[in-house]
Amino acid sequence: MGKKCVEVCFSPAMFERHANDEALIVVIDVLRATSAICTAFANGAREIIPVTTIEEARAMKDRGYLIAAERDGFVLDFADFGNSPFNFTGDKVSGRTIVYSTTNGTSIIRMASSCAGVLIGSYLNFTALADWLIKQERDVIIFCAGWKDRFNLEDTLCAGAFVEKLLDSGEFTTICDSAVAAVDLWGLAKHDLMAYVEKAAQRTRLRDKGLDDCIDYCHTFDKTSIIPVLKGDSLFPL
Amino acid sequence: MGKKCVEVCFSPAMFERHANDEALIVVIDVLRATSAICTAFANGAREIIPVTTIEEARAMKDRGYLIAAERDGFVLDFADFGNSPFNFTGDKVSGRTIVYSTTNGTSIIRMASSCAGVLIGSYLNFTALADWLIKQERDVIIFCAGWKDRFNLEDTLCAGAFVEKLLDSGEFTTICDSAVAAVDLWGLAKHDLMAYVEKAAQRTRLRDKGLDDCIDYCHTFDKTSIIPVLKGDSLFPL
Repeated sequence: MGKKCVEVCFSPAMFERHANDEALIVVIDVLRATSAICTAFANGAREIIPVTTIEEARAMKDRGYLIAAERDGFVLDFADFGNSPFNFTGDKVSGRTIVYSTTNGTSIIRMASSCAGVLIGSYLNFTALADWLIKQERDVIIFCAGWKDRFNLEDTLCAGAFVEKLLDSGEFTTICDSAVAAVDLWGLAKHDLMAYVEKAAQRTRLRDKGLDDCIDYCHTFDKTSIIPVLKGDSLFPL
Repeated sequence: MGKKCVEVCFSPAMFERHANDEALIVVIDVLRATSAICTAFANGAREIIPVTTIEEARAMKDRGYLIAAERDGFVLDFADFGNSPFNFTGDKVSGRTIVYSTTNGTSIIRMASSCAGVLIGSYLNFTALADWLIKQERDVIIFCAGWKDRFNLEDTLCAGAFVEKLLDSGEFTTICDSAVAAVDLWGLAKHDLMAYVEKAAQRTRLRDKGLDDCIDYCHTFDKTSIIPVLKGDSLFPL
């Protein structure tokens, strides 16, 4: 094939308009689901089962699974822990299967499941995933979780970082306005990323709830080379 | 009230998540519907009836209305003319009622009709509309038509120009990531707007169809001080 195409989808509400069954989908929810998933596998988790509803998560709890579940940043009462990547420590997750349900990030993993592949992206596994995507003969859609179907800045910036790297490889092109915008916003942010992330509404939401201890960590490049991939209904390391 | 809030909605697919019945909605479809609507009123049109479907437009044709209708840039066969603002000349539209249906812009005017007010925005009536918004005691949502439910650059840039002006007035604040992104993209574009608009996919689409003669015109500030507003099912000058 000629150059591959990369697109960015800013919200689950727009995914149907981007969806391309032949493409690889990279799901991004920097604060905090996909950062947490990468951390869990880096710390030895065996399998993560993303579920959409609280009811599904509760039913899986009754079947004995380890449950990570939150809504709007707060841990659900029946869950073993919530959505901070710092919860997914080796002593808790190594060798385990985790059922995971969050406000935005986990439901969209299933939305993308009809596509050629679903990968989990974050800054934490940035270079490993980008280098892998460059080697595949597939178009790529970076699918931002957003916030309750709305655009968010922190996922857009990470998407822009991925698009910039894919375009710089010479293997990709884009005719997607969202991808152009994401790269340009990343260009404004990258020289002082944490200062720019201060502008994001989710930054404020997490601070207001005292849940912002992981913000710096979630914006750290290349803590792991693991690429989580959806196989059937579960995520595994590639 | 304290400071008013301004938000930006990037796509009709996300509007439900932004909608606020107490807010004023500014619909923007720079290339070309809202630029054409402002032009039509500047040239003396009496009333514009936005309709969503081709069937509605055709039925109105049978009732004797002047019809402007296009899909994907092409004039529908039964229409009197299409979507270029250059069609809406005084000799054609002065004193007339026009039924108008386009790919993206006209259907969203109706989507917003339950809100406190629906105004039509473009660069062509920028200062008049922004100054009017600053004087109202209402929150504002800038509603980008986008392209087939996707994000587009040209509407986002115009939205960013409006948000910047509203924030600069001191009367508005925002906690909306889309508004922050739109202002920052506008900041990148404004010093050479036409060069930046070259990046937009719609720029390429219109050029490919030989429909790009109006691009410069549609990015010209303040050709008119008319503010089109939705009253019932029709647009009139405010």
